[in-house]
Amino acid sequence: MKFDFTTRVFEKEKITLAGTEEYIVRGGRHLFSRLPEAFSGIRRIGVIGWGSQGPAQAQNLRDSLKEGGSDIVVTVGLRRDSSSWKKAEAAGFSEATGTLGEMMGVIAESDMVLLLIADAAQAELYPDVFKAMRQGTTLGLSHGFLLGHLVSRGEYFPKDINVIGVCPKGMGPSVRRLYEQGRTTDGAGINSSFAVEQDIDGKATDYAIGWAVALGAPFSFMTSLEMEYRSDIYGERGILLGAVHGIVESLYRRYVDQGMSPKRAFNETVESVTGPISDTISHKGIRAVYDSLSAEDRKIFENAYSAAYLPAREILQEIYDEVASGNEIRSVILANGRMKTYPMETIDNTPMWTIGAEVRAVRNPESTPLNPFTAGVYIATMIAQIDILMDAGHVYSEIVNESVIEAVDSLNPYMHARGVSYMVDNCSTTARLGSRKWAPRFDYLFNQLAFPRVDGGVSADSATVNRFLDHPIHSAVETLLKYRPSVDIAVTA
Amino acid sequence: MKFDFTTRVFEKEKITLAGTEEYIVRGGRHLFSRLPEAFSGIRRIGVIGWGSQGPAQAQNLRDSLKEGGSDIVVTVGLRRDSSSWKKAEAAGFSEATGTLGEMMGVIAESDMVLLLIADAAQAELYPDVFKAMRQGTTLGLSHGFLLGHLVSRGEYFPKDINVIGVCPKGMGPSVRRLYEQGRTTDGAGINSSFAVEQDIDGKATDYAIGWAVALGAPFSFMTSLEMEYRSDIYGERGILLGAVHGIVESLYRRYVDQGMSPKRAFNETVESVTGPISDTISHKGIRAVYDSLSAEDRKIFENAYSAAYLPAREILQEIYDEVASGNEIRSVILANGRMKTYPMETIDNTPMWTIGAEVRAVRNPESTPLNPFTAGVYIATMIAQIDILMDAGHVYSEIVNESVIEAVDSLNPYMHARGVSYMVDNCSTTARLGSRKWAPRFDYLFNQLAFPRVDGGVSADSATVNRFLDHPIHSAVETLLKYRPSVDIAVTA
Repeated sequence: MKFDFTTRVFEKEKITLAGTEEYIVRGGRHLFSRLPEAFSGIRRIGVIGWGSQGPAQAQNLRDSLKEGGSDIVVTVGLRRDSSSWKKAEAAGFSEATGTLGEMMGVIAESDMVLLLIADAAQAELYPDVFKAMRQGTTLGLSHGFLLGHLVSRGEYFPKDINVIGVCPKGMGPSVRRLYEQGRTTDGAGINSSFAVEQDIDGKATDYAIGWAVALGAPFSFMTSLEMEYRSDIYGERGILLGAVHGIVESLYRRYVDQGMSPKRAFNETVESVTGPISDTISHKGIRAVYDSLSAEDRKIFENAYSAAYLPAREILQEIYDEVASGNEIRSVILANGRMKTYPMETIDNTPMWTIGAEVRAVRNPESTPLNPFTAGVYIATMIAQIDILMDAGHVYSEIVNESVIEAVDSLNPYMHARGVSYMVDNCSTTARLGSRKWAPRFDYLFNQLAFPRVDGGVSADSATVNRFLDHPIHSAVETLLKYRPSVDIAVTA
Repeated sequence: MKFDFTTRVFEKEKITLAGTEEYIVRGGRHLFSRLPEAFSGIRRIGVIGWGSQGPAQAQNLRDSLKEGGSDIVVTVGLRRDSSSWKKAEAAGFSEATGTLGEMMGVIAESDMVLLLIADAAQAELYPDVFKAMRQGTTLGLSHGFLLGHLVSRGEYFPKDINVIGVCPKGMGPSVRRLYEQGRTTDGAGINSSFAVEQDIDGKATDYAIGWAVALGAPFSFMTSLEMEYRSDIYGERGILLGAVHGIVESLYRRYVDQGMSPKRAFNETVESVTGPISDTISHKGIRAVYDSLSAEDRKIFENAYSAAYLPAREILQEIYDEVASGNEIRSVILANGRMKTYPMETIDNTPMWTIGAEVRAVRNPESTPLNPFTAGVYIATMIAQIDILMDAGHVYSEIVNESVIEAVDSLNPYMHARGVSYMVDNCSTTARLGSRKWAPRFDYLFNQLAFPRVDGGVSADSATVNRFLDHPIHSAVETLLKYRPSVDIAVTA
């Protein structure tokens, strides 16, 4: 088995995904009482940063530890002049109670440091962070970016600390949102991967699983920090953010060019993806979208799928190569250096998204169409993303979470509620940059390669369609559906 | 002065560009008789590769040397199984006459090796090339890519050879086309930069200038191989190929959305850029476009310019950073590894370019409009590209050639004749990849940031407009216009 681990506090469970065995840990609020044992030796957890993950994790941890009867203190660490200071106070953290303080001071005083500042800030500050951490304490990351950066510089973590990762498969706001829904609905939460990069005292694995459980993850699986950052940075540039944005832009334009009204085109693209397509995948799996179509619509789906699969795979392979080579990490750091001169601006000021706001305002979910052409392009891209992760040796839990569950259960609901910017710009800076960088590439490739093929009368390639219908991912998704929370994320419009 | 040099064979001329002094060398057919002296010690020049530059340079060199009364042999070196073998034969090179042979053999037998194979092939084959070259011979490059690759690997050229660069500021086909026109029209040719990276015998500078003169360069200026590859890879991703493609795609869509017929929109975008805008810049300079407008059209130009300048500069700064950091070079090499699985496909199969072919077929040059909005966006991007090169310390000769002359005198005429693919795909693989990669980014940034500003009624920023009107580049372009050939490139439709 690719990843194995020993836990003294939680239950390891063996599951079979498409014929492959993997170990997972199920979460749940009934496990909060085990947190004191899982975190043995820890008196203070410092949550550093207040971006996408910081607010969600600090609050979830604090609430879970309290519910579990632990006296571990969760302290938020920020720059003294941070504009987030007041936001942390509004969430109940304060200097007076020792739960809010200056970043480096909090790092020095914590037994476990969750470093949730932006990737580029990590790349800049890590020497100071490493220096501030006491020997024998634990560094927690929610993303393997820093490992990638260290490796590309020929460096590594200090040898005298634990290094673990817990990486929720959803943006911060959804980690908090579902946790809150979980107070009344058992099992609501965002799945998480965890990694043990360096274990100096035999406690690192239970620290990691305890952290995931405390965040409310209904389901946790093991990965390595390297596989994590590869799949994560890749996935958000792919179907999670960049690809879905490029797909709906290119399809919207296509449908309008073909004579559809802009409102209808928005319904047949964005609404179709974030509504019935996501809903079907979320509850019944990817193939269920195809199975739900009429014979005539299946033909349309097959043509779109056949034409889109290879162009999608081409650009996704490029993304994977760029991430794995370290180029993408270097680009993010370079981009950060430009951001003072060129701040990231909004991406939804265009006519399409302005019309989208009008469409959402009068939405009737009953009549949102499942457009088979849209579904074909979207699902071809999702499958291409999956195929590349399979080729690169990622485990099914990671593949399904990074390519399917995070898309339909965490991110698309945000685009559904308030448009593309609300989805993209609630994510990390690395994700926001990557989505802006790669969305246009998908758009152009579909427009230049996929659509002309369909319009030129090239019919569906039966081998490509059959590979989709018989794809092993369907069985893996089906198994993981059993672990799905009984509740959908509720994002307000 | 940034770059100075000594030539024993040609005349160095001091010119003043926007108040800055630079040395240049004027070319011309009357100098071909000096080639034997310039190339003293050289009996065989091996031209390796038959891509964009290979055919042009091999033929121009052979013809110029003959005209100059030299008995130096120009031998084309190719892989034995290369599909270009027959093309080289058709151009008059043959094994029987010792002017065509297997690549490594030709390299070993040549006193000067012009390595014109694709960048990625150079990155792969350079250890063999270095091994095959005899001590004391000369390596010639038409692009600094290999230097960038070596540096990023902590390596360098062998110490016992000259290393020079001659980099025509135009794609290969235009280097040949204008050379042929030059047989009857004095001074027709493509300008060139030259660089002396390593001079082991004091002859390297005249080898370089002789090479440039033999190619038919009417005007040569000095640079370094590092500044060359930065400005070259950057420029082709910018206004030369990538930016102009993204600009016309985004504007075409905008005009059609505003109600223009597709044919008219093509006229107001592509035809406008490749027709009157390029023509005016080519003969009268950048500001002349603005000066030719009516008061009303100037307002439109100013609004478009103001809205487009900063988004263009943002993406151009990103390109420069990616090139200078080595990321873009690594990306090209990674892309080359994928090309067997995903060959580069055509970019002009879309409705826009299909309509373009119809427009061109019935073109009346007299009635091609100079659209002031199109001009504003195009020229804002050109000026943004210039500003970033100035910030990075490039000399004016290089800036004007990479941002203005190559665009309007070499590349746009190809798009004018047969569309975007004919322009982009007659260039190097590195350029073709870069154009595909960056064009969509320009498109999205204009669509997301520039156009909404104009549509939202944000009026022109007078500081931005005044900076354009008073820009020092106008004086530099004006000076270089004096060196412009009296003939335009003739590209057949």
